[in-house]
Amino acid sequence: MADAPAGPLAIICGGGSFPGAVADAVAARGRRPVMFGIKGWADPAVVGRYVHHWIALGQAGRFFRLAKAENCREVLFIGTVLRPPLTALRLDWHTIKLMPRVIRFFRGGDDKLLSGVAGVAESGGLRVVGVKDVAPELFVPEGVLGRERPSQRDHADIDRALTLIATLGPFDVGQAAVVADGHVIAVEAAEGTDHMLNRIAELRRLGRVSAPRGVGVLVKAPKPGQDRRFDLPSIGPRTIDLVAKAGLAGLAVAAGSTIIAEAQAAIAAADREKIFVVGVREPGGRAVAQ
Amino acid sequence: MADAPAGPLAIICGGGSFPGAVADAVAARGRRPVMFGIKGWADPAVVGRYVHHWIALGQAGRFFRLAKAENCREVLFIGTVLRPPLTALRLDWHTIKLMPRVIRFFRGGDDKLLSGVAGVAESGGLRVVGVKDVAPELFVPEGVLGRERPSQRDHADIDRALTLIATLGPFDVGQAAVVADGHVIAVEAAEGTDHMLNRIAELRRLGRVSAPRGVGVLVKAPKPGQDRRFDLPSIGPRTIDLVAKAGLAGLAVAAGSTIIAEAQAAIAAADREKIFVVGVREPGGRAVAQ
Repeated sequence: MADAPAGPLAIICGGGSFPGAVADAVAARGRRPVMFGIKGWADPAVVGRYVHHWIALGQAGRFFRLAKAENCREVLFIGTVLRPPLTALRLDWHTIKLMPRVIRFFRGGDDKLLSGVAGVAESGGLRVVGVKDVAPELFVPEGVLGRERPSQRDHADIDRALTLIATLGPFDVGQAAVVADGHVIAVEAAEGTDHMLNRIAELRRLGRVSAPRGVGVLVKAPKPGQDRRFDLPSIGPRTIDLVAKAGLAGLAVAAGSTIIAEAQAAIAAADREKIFVVGVREPGGRAVAQ
Repeated sequence: MADAPAGPLAIICGGGSFPGAVADAVAARGRRPVMFGIKGWADPAVVGRYVHHWIALGQAGRFFRLAKAENCREVLFIGTVLRPPLTALRLDWHTIKLMPRVIRFFRGGDDKLLSGVAGVAESGGLRVVGVKDVAPELFVPEGVLGRERPSQRDHADIDRALTLIATLGPFDVGQAAVVADGHVIAVEAAEGTDHMLNRIAELRRLGRVSAPRGVGVLVKAPKPGQDRRFDLPSIGPRTIDLVAKAGLAGLAVAAGSTIIAEAQAAIAAADREKIFVVGVREPGGRAVAQ
Protein backbone atom coordinates (compact mmCIF):
# COMPACT_ATOMS: atom_id res chain seq x y z
CA MET A 1 0.00 0.00 0.00
CA ALA A 2 2.79 2.46 -0.91
CA ASP A 3 1.81 6.09 -1.35
CA ALA A 4 2.45 7.81 -4.65
CA PRO A 5 6.02 9.19 -4.72
CA ALA A 6 5.85 12.41 -2.77
CA GLY A 7 8.72 14.31 -4.42
CA PRO A 8 11.45 16.16 -2.54
CA LEU A 9 10.76 17.05 1.09
CA ALA A 10 11.51 20.54 2.39
CA ILE A 11 12.99 20.28 5.89
CA ILE A 12 13.07 23.52 7.86
CA CYS A 13 15.96 22.96 10.23
CA GLY A 14 16.37 24.41 13.72
CA GLY A 15 19.31 23.62 15.99
CA GLY A 16 20.72 20.28 17.10
CA SER A 17 21.34 17.02 15.28
CA PHE A 18 17.73 15.94 14.71
CA PRO A 19 17.37 17.63 11.30
CA GLY A 20 20.28 15.48 10.11
CA ALA A 21 18.77 12.31 11.58
CA VAL A 22 15.46 13.00 9.86
CA ALA A 23 17.15 13.82 6.54
CA ASP A 24 19.16 10.58 6.72
CA ALA A 25 16.04 8.53 7.36
CA VAL A 26 14.14 10.27 4.57
CA ALA A 27 17.04 9.75 2.13
CA ALA A 28 17.32 6.09 3.18
CA ARG A 29 13.71 5.67 2.10
CA GLY A 30 14.61 7.03 -1.32
CA ARG A 31 13.17 10.52 -0.95
CA ARG A 32 15.25 13.65 -1.54
CA PRO A 33 15.55 16.02 1.45
CA VAL A 34 15.99 19.74 0.77
CA MET A 35 17.34 21.46 3.87
CA PHE A 36 16.28 25.00 4.83
CA GLY A 37 18.59 25.99 7.68
CA ILE A 38 17.28 28.70 10.00
CA LYS A 39 20.06 31.24 10.39
CA GLY A 40 21.34 31.43 13.93
CA TRP A 41 19.84 28.08 14.87
CA ALA A 42 20.66 25.35 12.36
CA ASP A 43 24.09 23.73 12.43
CA PRO A 44 25.90 24.25 9.07
CA ALA A 45 27.55 20.82 9.42
CA VAL A 46 24.12 19.19 9.66
CA VAL A 47 22.37 21.25 6.98
CA GLY A 48 25.36 21.09 4.60
CA ARG A 49 25.17 17.32 4.13
CA TYR A 50 22.26 17.71 1.67
CA VAL A 51 21.05 20.23 -0.88
CA HIS A 52 20.35 23.27 1.27
CA HIS A 53 19.38 26.93 1.59
CA TRP A 54 19.55 29.36 4.47
CA ILE A 55 16.55 31.37 5.62
CA ALA A 56 16.01 33.83 8.44
CA LEU A 57 13.07 33.50 10.80
CA GLY A 58 10.18 35.40 9.29
CA GLN A 59 11.31 35.01 5.66
CA ALA A 60 8.26 33.05 4.59
CA GLY A 61 8.26 34.54 1.08
CA ARG A 62 11.86 33.54 0.42
CA PHE A 63 11.15 30.05 1.72
CA PHE A 64 8.09 29.59 -0.50
CA ARG A 65 10.01 30.72 -3.60
CA LEU A 66 12.91 28.36 -2.92
CA ALA A 67 10.65 25.44 -1.97
CA LYS A 68 8.70 25.91 -5.18
CA ALA A 69 11.89 26.08 -7.28
CA GLU A 70 12.99 22.80 -5.63
CA ASN A 71 9.63 21.18 -6.45
CA CYS A 72 8.77 20.57 -2.80
CA ARG A 73 5.10 19.98 -2.04
CA GLU A 74 5.58 19.00 1.59
CA VAL A 75 7.46 20.60 4.45
CA LEU A 76 8.63 19.32 7.82
CA PHE A 77 9.83 21.43 10.76
CA ILE A 78 12.48 19.93 13.01
CA GLY A 79 15.08 21.10 15.54
CA THR A 80 15.34 23.67 18.26
CA VAL A 81 14.00 27.15 17.67
CA LEU A 82 13.24 28.88 20.90
CA ARG A 83 10.63 31.58 20.76
CA PRO A 84 12.47 34.60 19.35
CA PRO A 85 11.87 38.17 20.47
CA LEU A 86 9.81 39.87 17.78
CA THR A 87 12.61 42.41 17.32
CA ALA A 88 15.00 39.64 16.25
CA LEU A 89 12.84 38.62 13.30
CA ARG A 90 13.84 39.63 9.79
CA LEU A 91 10.51 40.14 8.16
CA ASP A 92 10.04 39.98 4.42
CA TRP A 93 7.08 41.25 2.42
CA HIS A 94 5.16 37.99 2.45
CA THR A 95 5.50 37.77 6.19
CA ILE A 96 4.49 41.38 6.72
CA LYS A 97 1.25 40.71 4.88
CA LEU A 98 0.70 37.88 7.34
CA MET A 99 1.64 40.04 10.32
CA PRO A 100 -1.73 40.18 12.07
CA ARG A 101 -1.66 36.39 12.10
CA VAL A 102 1.98 36.25 13.23
CA ILE A 103 1.27 38.67 16.05
CA ARG A 104 -1.69 36.56 17.05
CA PHE A 105 0.27 33.39 17.43
CA PHE A 106 3.17 35.10 19.15
CA ARG A 107 0.72 36.11 21.83
CA GLY A 108 -0.47 32.57 22.36
CA GLY A 109 1.47 29.78 24.00
CA ASP A 110 4.18 27.92 22.15
CA ASP A 111 1.66 25.45 20.83
CA LYS A 112 -0.21 28.29 19.23
CA LEU A 113 3.03 29.70 17.83
CA LEU A 114 3.72 26.40 16.15
CA SER A 115 0.20 25.86 14.85
CA GLY A 116 0.43 29.40 13.52
CA VAL A 117 3.62 28.62 11.64
CA ALA A 118 1.92 25.55 10.16
CA GLY A 119 -0.99 27.70 9.05
CA VAL A 120 1.39 30.13 7.32
CA ALA A 121 3.13 27.24 5.54
CA GLU A 122 -0.19 25.86 4.38
CA SER A 123 -1.25 29.31 3.18
CA GLY A 124 1.80 29.08 0.87
CA GLY A 125 0.46 25.88 -0.67
CA LEU A 126 2.69 23.38 1.16
CA ARG A 127 1.44 20.47 3.21
CA VAL A 128 3.01 20.27 6.67
CA VAL A 129 4.06 16.74 7.56
CA GLY A 130 5.52 15.30 10.76
CA VAL A 131 8.41 12.95 11.48
CA LYS A 132 5.90 10.16 11.98
CA ASP A 133 4.76 10.55 8.36
CA VAL A 134 8.21 10.39 6.80
CA ALA A 135 10.51 8.52 9.23
CA PRO A 136 8.55 6.62 11.89
CA GLU A 137 11.65 4.55 12.72
CA LEU A 138 13.08 7.55 14.59
CA PHE A 139 10.55 7.16 17.40
CA VAL A 140 11.30 5.41 20.67
CA PRO A 141 9.26 2.17 20.82
CA GLU A 142 7.60 0.86 23.96
CA GLY A 143 9.86 -1.13 26.27
CA VAL A 144 13.43 -1.10 27.58
CA LEU A 145 16.05 -0.02 25.02
CA GLY A 146 19.39 -0.84 26.66
CA ARG A 147 20.65 -3.26 29.30
CA GLU A 148 19.41 -1.52 32.47
CA ARG A 149 15.81 -1.94 33.60
CA PRO A 150 13.75 0.44 35.75
CA SER A 151 13.05 -0.75 39.30
CA GLN A 152 9.64 -0.74 40.92
CA ARG A 153 10.49 2.62 42.55
CA ASP A 154 11.57 3.98 39.17
CA HIS A 155 8.22 2.91 37.73
CA ALA A 156 6.39 4.76 40.52
CA ASP A 157 8.49 7.89 39.80
CA ILE A 158 7.74 7.56 36.08
CA ASP A 159 3.98 7.35 36.73
CA ARG A 160 4.08 10.41 38.95
CA ALA A 161 6.00 12.46 36.38
CA LEU A 162 3.68 11.42 33.53
CA THR A 163 0.67 12.49 35.59
CA LEU A 164 2.36 15.80 36.42
CA ILE A 165 3.13 16.53 32.76
CA ALA A 166 -0.46 15.66 31.79
CA THR A 167 -1.77 17.93 34.57
CA LEU A 168 0.35 20.81 33.30
CA GLY A 169 -1.02 20.44 29.78
CA PRO A 170 -3.55 23.28 29.95
CA PHE A 171 -0.70 25.67 30.88
CA ASP A 172 1.27 24.92 27.71
CA VAL A 173 4.35 24.20 29.80
CA GLY A 174 6.60 21.29 30.55
CA GLN A 175 7.45 18.42 28.30
CA ALA A 176 9.68 17.11 31.07
CA ALA A 177 10.00 16.64 34.81
CA VAL A 178 12.32 14.90 37.23
CA VAL A 179 10.92 12.82 40.09
CA ALA A 180 13.10 11.09 42.68
CA ASP A 181 11.60 8.65 45.16
CA GLY A 182 8.20 10.31 44.86
CA HIS A 183 9.46 13.91 45.06
CA VAL A 184 9.10 16.22 42.10
CA ILE A 185 12.50 17.91 42.04
CA ALA A 186 12.27 19.78 38.74
CA VAL A 187 9.65 20.89 36.25
CA GLU A 188 10.77 22.10 32.84
CA ALA A 189 9.43 25.39 31.52
CA ALA A 190 11.29 27.89 29.29
CA GLU A 191 14.76 26.60 30.21
CA GLY A 192 14.69 23.32 28.26
CA THR A 193 15.67 19.80 29.30
CA ASP A 194 19.45 20.23 29.22
CA HIS A 195 19.31 23.29 31.45
CA MET A 196 17.00 21.47 33.87
CA LEU A 197 19.34 18.47 34.09
CA ASN A 198 22.31 20.76 34.74
CA ARG A 199 20.30 22.34 37.56
CA ILE A 200 19.78 18.96 39.20
CA ALA A 201 23.50 18.20 39.01
CA GLU A 202 24.12 21.57 40.69
CA LEU A 203 21.47 21.07 43.41
CA ARG A 204 23.00 17.67 44.10
CA ARG A 205 26.47 19.19 44.53
CA LEU A 206 24.94 21.70 46.97
CA GLY A 207 23.35 18.82 48.93
CA ARG A 208 19.85 20.01 48.07
CA VAL A 209 18.59 16.79 46.56
CA SER A 210 18.02 14.27 49.32
CA ALA A 211 17.62 11.21 47.09
CA PRO A 212 20.98 9.44 46.75
CA ARG A 213 22.76 9.13 43.40
CA GLY A 214 21.13 6.53 41.21
CA VAL A 215 17.61 7.46 42.40
CA GLY A 216 15.36 9.60 40.24
CA VAL A 217 14.01 9.61 36.74
CA LEU A 218 13.83 12.09 33.89
CA VAL A 219 10.50 11.76 32.10
CA LYS A 220 9.69 13.39 28.78
CA ALA A 221 6.31 13.30 27.12
CA PRO A 222 4.40 15.56 24.73
CA LYS A 223 1.95 17.91 26.36
CA PRO A 224 -1.64 16.83 25.85
CA GLY A 225 -2.97 18.51 22.74
CA GLN A 226 0.52 19.29 21.44
CA ASP A 227 0.74 19.45 17.65
CA ARG A 228 2.84 16.36 17.03
CA ARG A 229 3.73 17.34 13.50
CA PHE A 230 6.73 19.36 14.56
CA ASP A 231 7.11 19.84 18.28
CA LEU A 232 8.14 16.54 19.75
CA PRO A 233 10.18 15.57 22.79
CA SER A 234 13.54 14.21 21.72
CA ILE A 235 16.54 12.55 23.29
CA GLY A 236 20.04 11.69 22.17
CA PRO A 237 23.52 10.85 23.49
CA ARG A 238 23.78 14.28 25.12
CA THR A 239 20.59 13.64 27.10
CA ILE A 240 22.09 10.39 28.43
CA ASP A 241 25.25 12.21 29.42
CA LEU A 242 23.32 14.88 31.34
CA VAL A 243 21.06 12.30 33.02
CA ALA A 244 24.23 10.55 34.24
CA LYS A 245 25.73 13.83 35.49
CA ALA A 246 22.47 14.60 37.31
CA GLY A 247 22.87 11.29 39.17
CA LEU A 248 19.55 9.86 38.01
CA ALA A 249 18.70 6.20 37.50
CA GLY A 250 17.41 6.64 34.00
CA LEU A 251 14.98 8.24 31.63
CA ALA A 252 11.53 7.36 30.42
CA VAL A 253 9.96 8.84 27.33
CA ALA A 254 6.55 8.61 25.75
CA ALA A 255 6.75 5.66 23.35
CA GLY A 256 5.77 6.41 19.78
CA SER A 257 6.03 10.17 20.15
CA THR A 258 9.61 10.84 21.28
CA ILE A 259 12.44 11.01 18.77
CA ILE A 260 15.77 9.38 19.52
CA ALA A 261 18.77 10.79 17.68
CA GLU A 262 21.87 8.64 17.13
CA ALA A 263 20.02 5.76 18.75
CA GLN A 264 22.96 3.33 18.77
CA ALA A 265 25.35 5.84 20.32
CA ALA A 266 22.70 6.91 22.85
CA ILE A 267 21.98 3.34 23.95
CA ALA A 268 25.69 2.47 24.15
CA ALA A 269 26.21 5.54 26.36
CA ALA A 270 23.28 4.50 28.58
CA ASP A 271 24.70 0.98 28.99
CA ARG A 272 28.13 2.42 29.83
CA GLU A 273 26.64 4.80 32.42
CA LYS A 274 24.28 2.09 33.76
CA ILE A 275 21.26 4.25 32.96
CA PHE A 276 17.96 2.81 31.84
CA VAL A 277 16.10 4.14 28.81
CA VAL A 278 12.51 3.08 28.49
CA GLY A 279 9.64 3.92 26.19
CA VAL A 280 6.42 4.08 28.19
CA ARG A 281 2.81 4.40 27.30
CA GLU A 282 1.37 7.82 28.13
CA PRO A 283 -1.64 8.03 30.44
CA GLY A 284 -4.53 7.46 28.11
CA GLY A 285 -2.14 5.34 26.07
CA ARG A 286 -1.18 6.08 22.50
CA ALA A 287 1.68 3.59 22.31
CA VAL A 288 1.25 0.06 21.01
CA ALA A 289 0.97 -2.67 23.67
CA GLN A 290 3.98 -4.97 24.10
CA MET B 1 -10.03 39.11 74.69
CA ALA B 2 -6.28 38.74 75.40
CA ASP B 3 -4.96 35.20 75.88
CA ALA B 4 -3.34 34.24 79.15
CA PRO B 5 0.37 35.13 79.06
CA ALA B 6 1.98 32.35 77.04
CA GLY B 7 5.49 32.41 78.59
CA PRO B 8 8.69 32.34 76.56
CA LEU B 9 8.43 31.14 72.95
CA ALA B 10 10.91 28.61 71.58
CA ILE B 11 11.84 29.57 68.01
CA ILE B 12 13.59 26.87 66.01
CA CYS B 13 15.57 28.89 63.49
CA GLY B 14 16.56 27.84 59.99
CA GLY B 15 18.45 30.08 57.56
CA GLY B 16 17.73 33.62 56.42
CA SER B 17 16.51 36.69 58.23
CA PHE B 18 12.95 35.60 59.00
CA PRO B 19 13.74 34.08 62.41
CA GLY B 20 15.03 37.51 63.46
CA ALA B 21 11.95 39.28 62.11
CA VAL B 22 9.65 36.91 64.00
CA ALA B 23 11.68 37.23 67.21
CA ASP B 24 11.56 41.04 66.95
CA ALA B 25 7.79 41.02 66.49
CA VAL B 26 7.31 38.57 69.37
CA ALA B 27 9.56 40.67 71.65
CA ALA B 28 7.72 43.85 70.62
CA ARG B 29 4.53 42.23 71.91
CA GLY B 30 6.20 41.66 75.28
CA ARG B 31 6.90 37.96 74.93
CA ARG B 32 10.40 36.51 75.38
CA PRO B 33 11.81 34.61 72.35
CA VAL B 34 14.27 31.79 72.98
CA MET B 35 16.20 31.02 69.81
CA PHE B 36 17.23 27.48 68.85
CA GLY B 37 19.56 27.86 65.89
CA ILE B 38 19.86 24.84 63.62
CA LYS B 39 23.57 24.25 63.05
CA GLY B 40 24.56 24.72 59.45
CA TRP B 41 21.42 26.69 58.60
CA ALA B 42 20.71 29.47 61.10
CA ASP B 43 22.67 32.71 60.87
CA PRO B 44 24.62 33.35 64.14
CA ALA B 45 24.07 37.12 63.74
CA VAL B 46 20.29 36.56 63.68
CA VAL B 47 20.11 33.94 66.43
CA GLY B 48 22.63 35.77 68.67
CA ARG B 49 20.40 38.80 69.19
CA TYR B 50 18.32 36.92 71.80
CA VAL B 51 18.84 34.18 74.38
CA HIS B 52 19.82 31.23 72.22
CA HIS B 53 21.03 27.66 71.93
CA TRP B 54 22.36 25.65 69.00
CA ILE B 55 20.94 22.30 68.00
CA ALA B 56 21.72 19.90 65.20
CA LEU B 57 18.98 18.50 62.99
CA GLY B 58 17.71 15.35 64.63
CA GLN B 59 18.61 16.37 68.20
CA ALA B 60 15.03 16.36 69.43
CA GLY B 61 16.01 15.17 72.93
CA ARG B 62 18.48 18.00 73.43
CA PHE B 63 15.92 20.49 72.19
CA PHE B 64 13.20 19.23 74.55
CA ARG B 65 15.58 19.42 77.55
CA LEU B 66 16.64 22.96 76.75
CA ALA B 67 13.11 24.16 75.94
CA LYS B 68 11.89 22.74 79.27
CA ALA B 69 14.75 24.41 81.17
CA GLU B 70 13.77 27.71 79.49
CA ASN B 71 10.13 27.24 80.51
CA CYS B 72 8.89 27.18 76.91
CA ARG B 73 5.47 25.62 76.35
CA GLU B 74 5.16 26.63 72.70
CA VAL B 75 7.48 26.28 69.75
CA LEU B 76 7.59 27.92 66.32
CA PHE B 77 9.61 26.77 63.29
CA ILE B 78 10.88 29.44 60.93
CA GLY B 79 13.54 29.84 58.25
CA THR B 80 15.07 27.78 55.50
CA VAL B 81 15.90 24.15 56.14
CA LEU B 82 16.12 22.21 52.95
CA ARG B 83 15.47 18.53 53.17
CA PRO B 84 18.72 17.06 54.47
CA PRO B 85 20.13 13.73 53.33
CA LEU B 86 19.51 11.22 56.13
CA THR B 87 23.26 10.64 56.43
CA ALA B 88 23.79 14.30 57.37
CA LEU B 89 21.56 14.06 60.43
CA ARG B 90 23.11 13.83 63.88
CA LEU B 91 20.68 11.61 65.67
CA ASP B 92 20.36 11.55 69.44
CA TRP B 93 18.67 8.88 71.56
CA HIS B 94 15.28 10.56 71.67
CA THR B 95 15.27 10.86 67.91
CA ILE B 96 16.40 7.26 67.39
CA LYS B 97 13.42 6.09 69.43
CA LEU B 98 11.28 8.08 67.00
CA MET B 99 13.13 6.72 63.95
CA PRO B 100 10.28 4.71 62.40
CA ARG B 101 8.28 7.93 62.37
CA VAL B 102 11.20 9.99 61.05
CA ILE B 103 11.76 7.51 58.25
CA ARG B 104 8.08 7.63 57.44
CA PHE B 105 8.01 11.35 56.96
CA PHE B 106 11.28 11.47 55.10
CA ARG B 107 9.65 9.23 52.55
CA GLY B 108 6.71 11.56 52.13
CA GLY B 109 6.73 14.93 50.43
CA ASP B 110 8.02 18.02 52.18
CA ASP B 111 4.61 18.68 53.63
CA LYS B 112 4.70 15.29 55.28
CA LEU B 113 8.23 15.93 56.53
CA LEU B 114 7.07 19.11 58.19
CA SER B 115 3.90 17.66 59.67
CA GLY B 116 6.09 14.85 60.96
CA VAL B 117 8.41 17.31 62.69
CA ALA B 118 5.38 18.98 64.26
CA GLY B 119 4.18 15.60 65.51
CA VAL B 120 7.57 14.92 67.10
CA ALA B 121 7.52 18.34 68.82
CA GLU B 122 4.04 17.70 70.16
CA SER B 123 5.10 14.25 71.40
CA GLY B 124 7.62 16.16 73.56
CA GLY B 125 4.80 18.13 75.19
CA LEU B 126 5.21 21.38 73.26
CA ARG B 127 2.48 23.09 71.28
CA VAL B 128 3.48 24.05 67.75
CA VAL B 129 2.37 27.57 66.84
CA GLY B 130 2.61 29.51 63.59
CA VAL B 131 3.69 33.04 62.76
CA LYS B 132 0.04 33.97 62.42
CA ASP B 133 -0.51 33.08 66.09
CA VAL B 134 2.34 35.16 67.44
CA ALA B 135 3.09 37.94 64.94
CA PRO B 136 0.28 38.39 62.38
CA GLU B 137 1.69 41.80 61.41
CA LEU B 138 4.44 40.03 59.43
CA PHE B 139 1.97 38.88 56.78
CA VAL B 140 1.48 40.68 53.49
CA PRO B 141 -2.02 42.24 53.48
CA GLU B 142 -4.27 42.36 50.43
CA GLY B 143 -3.60 45.22 48.04
CA VAL B 144 -0.66 47.13 46.57
CA LEU B 145 2.22 47.75 48.99
CA GLY B 146 4.47 50.25 47.21
CA ARG B 147 4.07 52.92 44.55
CA GLU B 148 3.84 50.74 41.42
CA ARG B 149 0.56 49.07 40.48
CA PRO B 150 0.07 45.92 38.40
CA SER B 151 -1.35 46.47 34.89
CA GLN B 152 -4.25 44.52 33.45
CA ARG B 153 -1.77 42.18 31.72
CA ASP B 154 0.05 41.70 35.03
CA HIS B 155 -3.26 40.75 36.65
CA ALA B 156 -3.89 38.16 33.94
CA ASP B 157 -0.39 36.73 34.50
CA ILE B 158 -1.02 36.64 38.26
CA ASP B 159 -4.27 34.72 37.81
CA ARG B 160 -2.62 32.20 35.53
CA ALA B 161 0.24 31.61 37.98
CA LEU B 162 -2.12 31.23 40.96
CA THR B 163 -4.13 28.64 39.04
CA LEU B 164 -0.94 26.81 38.08
CA ILE B 165 0.27 26.69 41.69
CA ALA B 166 -3.13 25.43 42.85
CA THR B 167 -3.11 22.78 40.10
CA LEU B 168 0.31 21.57 41.23
CA GLY B 169 -0.86 21.18 44.82
CA PRO B 170 -1.39 17.40 44.72
CA PHE B 171 2.24 16.98 43.60
CA ASP B 172 3.62 18.75 46.69
CA VAL B 173 5.69 21.01 44.48
CA GLY B 174 5.93 24.66 43.67
CA GLN B 175 5.14 27.58 45.90
CA ALA B 176 6.11 29.85 43.05
CA ALA B 177 5.96 30.36 39.30
CA VAL B 178 6.80 33.06 36.79
CA VAL B 179 4.35 33.96 34.03
CA ALA B 180 5.10 36.58 31.36
CA ASP B 181 2.37 37.72 28.99
CA GLY B 182 0.48 34.47 29.42
CA HIS B 183 3.51 32.17 29.12
CA VAL B 184 4.63 30.10 32.06
CA ILE B 185 8.39 30.57 31.94
CA ALA B 186 9.40 28.95 35.22
CA VAL B 187 7.95 26.61 37.81
CA GLU B 188 9.70 26.28 41.14
CA ALA B 189 10.48 22.81 42.48
CA ALA B 190 13.52 21.81 44.59
CA GLU B 191 15.63 24.78 43.52
CA GLY B 192 13.87 27.51 45.53
CA THR B 193 12.68 30.97 44.48
CA ASP B 194 16.07 32.69 44.39
CA HIS B 195 17.54 30.05 42.11
CA MET B 196 14.50 30.23 39.83
CA LEU B 197 14.77 34.03 39.54
CA ASN B 198 18.48 33.76 38.72
CA ARG B 199 17.55 31.30 35.99
CA ILE B 200 15.18 33.79 34.41
CA ALA B 201 17.85 36.47 34.44
CA GLU B 202 20.16 34.00 32.69
CA LEU B 203 17.55 32.91 30.10
CA ARG B 204 16.93 36.58 29.39
CA ARG B 205 20.64 37.21 28.79
CA LEU B 206 20.62 34.26 26.39
CA GLY B 207 17.63 35.73 24.53
CA ARG B 208 15.42 32.79 25.54
CA VAL B 209 12.64 34.82 27.14
CA SER B 210 10.63 36.54 24.45
CA ALA B 211 8.71 38.91 26.73
CA PRO B 212 10.55 42.24 26.93
CA ARG B 213 12.01 43.54 30.20
CA GLY B 214 9.31 44.85 32.49
CA VAL B 215 6.85 42.11 31.47
CA GLY B 216 6.26 39.10 33.71
CA VAL B 217 5.31 38.41 37.26
CA LEU B 218 6.67 36.28 40.09
CA VAL B 219 3.80 34.74 42.04
CA LYS B 220 4.18 32.99 45.37
CA ALA B 221 1.39 31.23 47.20
CA PRO B 222 1.18 28.34 49.65
CA LYS B 223 0.36 25.00 48.13
CA PRO B 224 -3.20 23.91 48.86
CA GLY B 225 -3.20 21.83 52.01
CA GLN B 226 0.17 23.15 53.12
CA ASP B 227 0.63 23.24 56.90
CA ARG B 228 0.69 26.98 57.45
CA ARG B 229 2.12 26.74 60.91
CA PHE B 230 5.69 26.70 59.72
CA ASP B 231 6.12 26.44 55.99
CA LEU B 232 5.07 29.71 54.45
CA PRO B 233 6.07 31.57 51.32
CA SER B 234 8.16 34.56 52.24
CA ILE B 235 9.66 37.59 50.55
CA GLY B 236 12.14 40.26 51.50
CA PRO B 237 14.51 42.86 50.02
CA ARG B 238 16.56 40.11 48.36
CA THR B 239 13.45 38.85 46.54
CA ILE B 240 12.84 42.36 45.16
CA ASP B 241 16.44 42.58 44.03
CA LEU B 242 16.22 39.26 42.15
CA VAL B 243 12.84 40.13 40.61
CA ALA B 244 14.45 43.32 39.26
CA LYS B 245 17.47 41.41 37.90
CA ALA B 246 15.08 38.93 36.22
CA GLY B 247 13.50 41.89 34.39
CA LEU B 248 10.01 41.25 35.73
CA ALA B 249 7.29 43.83 36.32
CA GLY B 250 6.62 42.80 39.88
CA LEU B 251 5.59 40.17 42.33
CA ALA B 252 2.31 39.01 43.72
CA VAL B 253 1.96 36.96 46.87
CA ALA B 254 -0.95 35.30 48.61
CA ALA B 255 -2.29 37.90 51.03
CA GLY B 256 -2.54 36.79 54.64
CA SER B 257 -0.26 33.81 54.22
CA THR B 258 3.04 35.21 52.92
CA ILE B 259 5.61 36.68 55.27
CA ILE B 260 7.43 39.85 54.37
CA ALA B 261 10.79 40.36 56.07
CA GLU B 262 12.20 43.87 56.50
CA ALA B 263 9.00 45.22 54.99
CA GLN B 264 10.10 48.86 54.88
CA ALA B 265 13.41 48.08 53.19
CA ALA B 266 11.68 45.69 50.77
CA ILE B 267 9.05 48.24 49.75
CA ALA B 268 11.66 51.02 49.39
CA ALA B 269 13.68 48.71 47.11
CA ALA B 270 10.56 47.93 45.05
CA ASP B 271 9.80 51.64 44.59
CA ARG B 272 13.40 52.31 43.60
CA GLU B 273 13.35 49.47 41.04
CA LYS B 274 9.82 50.40 39.85
CA ILE B 275 8.54 46.95 40.75
CA PHE B 276 5.06 46.34 42.06
CA VAL B 277 4.39 44.24 45.16
CA VAL B 278 0.83 43.14 45.66
CA GLY B 279 -0.98 40.88 48.10
CA VAL B 280 -3.67 38.95 46.24
CA ARG B 281 -6.45 36.70 47.32
CA GLU B 282 -5.80 33.06 46.53
CA PRO B 283 -8.29 31.14 44.39
CA GLY B 284 -10.86 30.04 46.90
CA GLY B 285 -9.92 33.18 48.80
CA ARG B 286 -8.54 33.15 52.31
CA ALA B 287 -7.56 36.81 52.36
CA VAL B 288 -9.83 39.48 53.76
CA ALA B 289 -11.76 41.55 51.21
CA GLN B 290 -10.53 45.09 50.69
